[in-house]
Amino acid sequence: MSTPEDAEAPSPPLGRMKSVASYTYDNITGWKSVRILRIGRGMYHDVRRRLPYYWSDIRDAWTYRTVASIVRMYFVNMLPAIAYTLDMHRRTGEFYGINEALFSSALAAMVFSIFAVQPLTIVGITGLISLFNYTIYDIIKIYDPSIYPEFMCWVGIWGAIFHWIVALCNMCDYMRYATDFSSETFGFYVGTIYISKGVEELISEFTSKGSAGGFVSCMIAILYFLTIYTLEIIGSSTVWTAAFRGLLADYAYVIGTIFWVGFSHIPGPLKAVDMTRVPISKAFYPTQPRGWLIHFWELDVKWIFVALPFGFLIMLLFYYDHNVSSLTAQARQFPLKKPAGFHWDFFLLGCTTFISGIIGIPFPNGLVPQAPVHTDSLTVYETDLCVVPTDEGEGAEIRRPVIKATAVVEQRISHFVMGLAIIGTMTGPLLIVLHTMPAAVFAGVFFIVGWGSIGSSGIMQKAIHLVRENRFVQRDEPLLNVRNRKILLWISCQLIAVAACVAISETIAAIGIIFPLFMALSKCLTEFYFPGFPVLIIALIPIRVFIIPRWFSGDELVVLDDMTANNKAVLASLGGPPTFPGEKRVQDYGIERRHSEQKKGVDRQRAGSIHR
Amino acid sequence: MSTPEDAEAPSPPLGRMKSVASYTYDNITGWKSVRILRIGRGMYHDVRRRLPYYWSDIRDAWTYRTVASIVRMYFVNMLPAIAYTLDMHRRTGEFYGINEALFSSALAAMVFSIFAVQPLTIVGITGLISLFNYTIYDIIKIYDPSIYPEFMCWVGIWGAIFHWIVALCNMCDYMRYATDFSSETFGFYVGTIYISKGVEELISEFTSKGSAGGFVSCMIAILYFLTIYTLEIIGSSTVWTAAFRGLLADYAYVIGTIFWVGFSHIPGPLKAVDMTRVPISKAFYPTQPRGWLIHFWELDVKWIFVALPFGFLIMLLFYYDHNVSSLTAQARQFPLKKPAGFHWDFFLLGCTTFISGIIGIPFPNGLVPQAPVHTDSLTVYETDLCVVPTDEGEGAEIRRPVIKATAVVEQRISHFVMGLAIIGTMTGPLLIVLHTMPAAVFAGVFFIVGWGSIGSSGIMQKAIHLVRENRFVQRDEPLLNVRNRKILLWISCQLIAVAACVAISETIAAIGIIFPLFMALSKCLTEFYFPGFPVLIIALIPIRVFIIPRWFSGDELVVLDDMTANNKAVLASLGGPPTFPGEKRVQDYGIERRHSEQKKGVDRQRAGSIHR
Repeated sequence: MSTPEDAEAPSPPLGRMKSVASYTYDNITGWKSVRILRIGRGMYHDVRRRLPYYWSDIRDAWTYRTVASIVRMYFVNMLPAIAYTLDMHRRTGEFYGINEALFSSALAAMVFSIFAVQPLTIVGITGLISLFNYTIYDIIKIYDPSIYPEFMCWVGIWGAIFHWIVALCNMCDYMRYATDFSSETFGFYVGTIYISKGVEELISEFTSKGSAGGFVSCMIAILYFLTIYTLEIIGSSTVWTAAFRGLLADYAYVIGTIFWVGFSHIPGPLKAVDMTRVPISKAFYPTQPRGWLIHFWELDVKWIFVALPFGFLIMLLFYYDHNVSSLTAQARQFPLKKPAGFHWDFFLLGCTTFISGIIGIPFPNGLVPQAPVHTDSLTVYETDLCVVPTDEGEGAEIRRPVIKATAVVEQRISHFVMGLAIIGTMTGPLLIVLHTMPAAVFAGVFFIVGWGSIGSSGIMQKAIHLVRENRFVQRDEPLLNVRNRKILLWISCQLIAVAACVAISETIAAIGIIFPLFMALSKCLTEFYFPGFPVLIIALIPIRVFIIPRWFSGDELVVLDDMTANNKAVLASLGGPPTFPGEKRVQDYGIERRHSEQKKGVDRQRAGSIHR
Repeated sequence: MSTPEDAEAPSPPLGRMKSVASYTYDNITGWKSVRILRIGRGMYHDVRRRLPYYWSDIRDAWTYRTVASIVRMYFVNMLPAIAYTLDMHRRTGEFYGINEALFSSALAAMVFSIFAVQPLTIVGITGLISLFNYTIYDIIKIYDPSIYPEFMCWVGIWGAIFHWIVALCNMCDYMRYATDFSSETFGFYVGTIYISKGVEELISEFTSKGSAGGFVSCMIAILYFLTIYTLEIIGSSTVWTAAFRGLLADYAYVIGTIFWVGFSHIPGPLKAVDMTRVPISKAFYPTQPRGWLIHFWELDVKWIFVALPFGFLIMLLFYYDHNVSSLTAQARQFPLKKPAGFHWDFFLLGCTTFISGIIGIPFPNGLVPQAPVHTDSLTVYETDLCVVPTDEGEGAEIRRPVIKATAVVEQRISHFVMGLAIIGTMTGPLLIVLHTMPAAVFAGVFFIVGWGSIGSSGIMQKAIHLVRENRFVQRDEPLLNVRNRKILLWISCQLIAVAACVAISETIAAIGIIFPLFMALSKCLTEFYFPGFPVLIIALIPIRVFIIPRWFSGDELVVLDDMTANNKAVLASLGGPPTFPGEKRVQDYGIERRHSEQKKGVDRQRAGSIHR
């Protein structure tokens, strides 16, 4: 990291530096200022900007942080992917299984670690794609469940086409308007989905394995959650040395997973209980008796066109989900030096969607809670001592830790090796190791990743500020400049959006489970209603730009909102910083964050947290 | 609390004030300076000192704190008592049951709330007496289990006689040498016993009810623990208002118990699982088909004398256990104004031991983790704002809460009404309510009370100080004046004592359970070895007085140790403050505590914590 060579790496030749600034539409008039007409301009600049760093992306990787990152990301990526697959397996007529999930994760890791402009964005299987897939199955099976593979294939093909159009027409530029308002809301929504999936996982243990299996699973899930949570709290405390604390936090998932999987095999009452373990099938073969290639040409033409709107929805979902995970992986708290490339990466996502469709595996995309964890695991943190002198005399000064992010090991190798590890997992012997894992551990993963996303979000922080007894609030807290009523309105807007998303994607299913009477209604609603949740999520950006400024003054927005990523190297790919109509310069955003960073330093990313 | 009348209450007529100071052996020579020859002198002064306050003990009670205290103590006293009884019931051939336990608790509450000098000391059934009772059963049943009731009766009679001798000969005076060294150690030991009892309770669920019952019990116990722990953390945070936070902490046990008992009855998988619930028998009758009076005159004379040493051990156990719980109930952090009376109260304990023996109920004594909780629940705390100016400019001063104990509602009514509530519980309808409670909740109570005793103990605080990264330790921390090696030696001495006590009272039983091969050995050892644990506990005081000063300098002891109770009103009953040979004046003790109180104020007692 700190050798002279490395220090040079982020400074490519001067001639190329000019191109970093050159992707902009400022001072351009006529048809050339219309972004969607400048086909491929964003992609061209993305590649031109990043290509000079390619060699350093390999050379910079040889540090300990890369090792820690590979181990951590393998667990954080794989465990939820497998967990979602357990769910998807049950609910898509067993079409998608572990082999498909591993294949998809491995494909994404290979493609994105080698070809992506920004290899930090971890790509894999999300909860939303699992939700999407089984909702489509619910719709399709009303007509003919046997066409599901071909139908999904066409959804992938159409989705890929829309991806390519969006990427070529520079439409990722609009992501520069994504601020904390929308990305916190999305993070909170995803966290909620994770936790509710964890609960569903446990409920299904009761249904399939009976009381003993259900309760032992609840117990393991709770204790797994507490183990990792405690290890991470110790990691950010001031006990032992910084190095040892760091190790505990780096390998929290490894320690927790190995311990609790082992625990579930202790002979006696534990071993005797029947628990769901990861179902596996023959290595490298699809779960269903089929070849890898889907015979998409056999689908009725009518259905090909029915797949078109679903393909569009997939694109909408990924547009937001992938780009937000990319933004958060490059968020403001990470001192990144190498440039981003949203257009190119989105084009690449179209390619993986296409391939996944053709071979019948779940479509991978950017992992919202995990992508920033990747960057975090590659960040070199230093815990400094901050001594605040007080008036209480000598020795009474307050000593507190201030954590600084001094550098990020920006490279491709951690993503690539993690992909190799996933391919390794696809082989027979390691599949058998997977089979030893109880589903309860996955429920625990859902809880810890989901809570990481919710507990550390800005929504939570503002809510805690609101309930805190006024006299104990530091007087220089920037939120004191905004009336409580307005803070409440702000988080209410966010929470209403969360509730709406959850309502669409979860409640109907829940109603369906609880009251069989509503089953028919639920089915009916689902068809027209459910797959629309990406529309709602994406609507958050225009709401923020056009509606929110009517309710909040510029001074309030400067405190309440913040750019999700404000790094120049990131914004360069999006055509420069956004301008919100009628608001103060966006550069002033983030008063709250700067205040907190000055006081306490950056917070380490907990697994799954989007901000702070 | 703050009316003029109340303010007068703690100031009795001047003539009587003199007697407060008059129980001392300073400046007395000849046979009159030999404490044990001055029969009844301590008891006489105890009563003379306290009697003038008797009317105010009733008048002062009419405040809200008394109500909160009654509710809290009812739960904190009853739940562990019932839990221990479940254990004792199984292990004493079902001789002691719920009715006996309730009777014993009610008897103790009535006697001590009406006749005790210090009504704050909650008296009831402890874990150690349950341990004691079933160890004697283990010994007796080798010969003839049928004589157990009469034998225990004689243990009680002998125990009572020894109690009376100790009280009359002023031997409670030696308790003034009890410092944090011994009382922290004892608290840690008792906490360990509590937690291990919780685990045993859960294990017995697996043995008696199978996997489903066992795992659901584990789950409920863990969640019960987390519920109460979280409520207490919220209670000591700065969210909402001080009054609301206080309510949450006051009724944490009520909320937690009602919720989780209700939870265990939710129809579906929970209700379907067979869980152990509190076994009850006919109201007001002994569990065994017998009259309340034990026919102690029918015991063989040989056995009457075998009971003598056990009676002595009971006295030793209670000497330490009861007096330490009384000391901690009147510990330094409580601003008590009314005088203590150790001699009289110990005499009274002899009486309850005698009655309990005669009617065949477990002997009650002072409850170590619960007694300070009683005083705490009666303490009026105020959360003040402490603003520490810093050099970081205006608005950057640090605002933190400082908790002050402003007064204690010293009265008899809370103890008395709690006793009435226990008598109410003995009636048929309420026994049926008790029967709805799953054993898992009691395991949770053991965890929370046990951890309260361990987590907040000085041993733990010193251990955390040792592992903390040096640069983050405040420079004015008094422990920095003692070398780490010495701090380690100090807590090692304490932990070795804890380990020795646990080894004697637990490990042999555990070995017996795990390896049936060792059963015979265990039995054999138990007989000579186990009931000796009170000797070990009591040995801590002379160890502190004679051995510890050889290893630690006076300057170190001033930082490491502290008087458990340093209130003049308390020490008056023990013949004034102790003098340790060759050490600095004991008045300097407690540097660490004073430093912490100045910085952060007193810590609220958590349920079951002995100090801080």
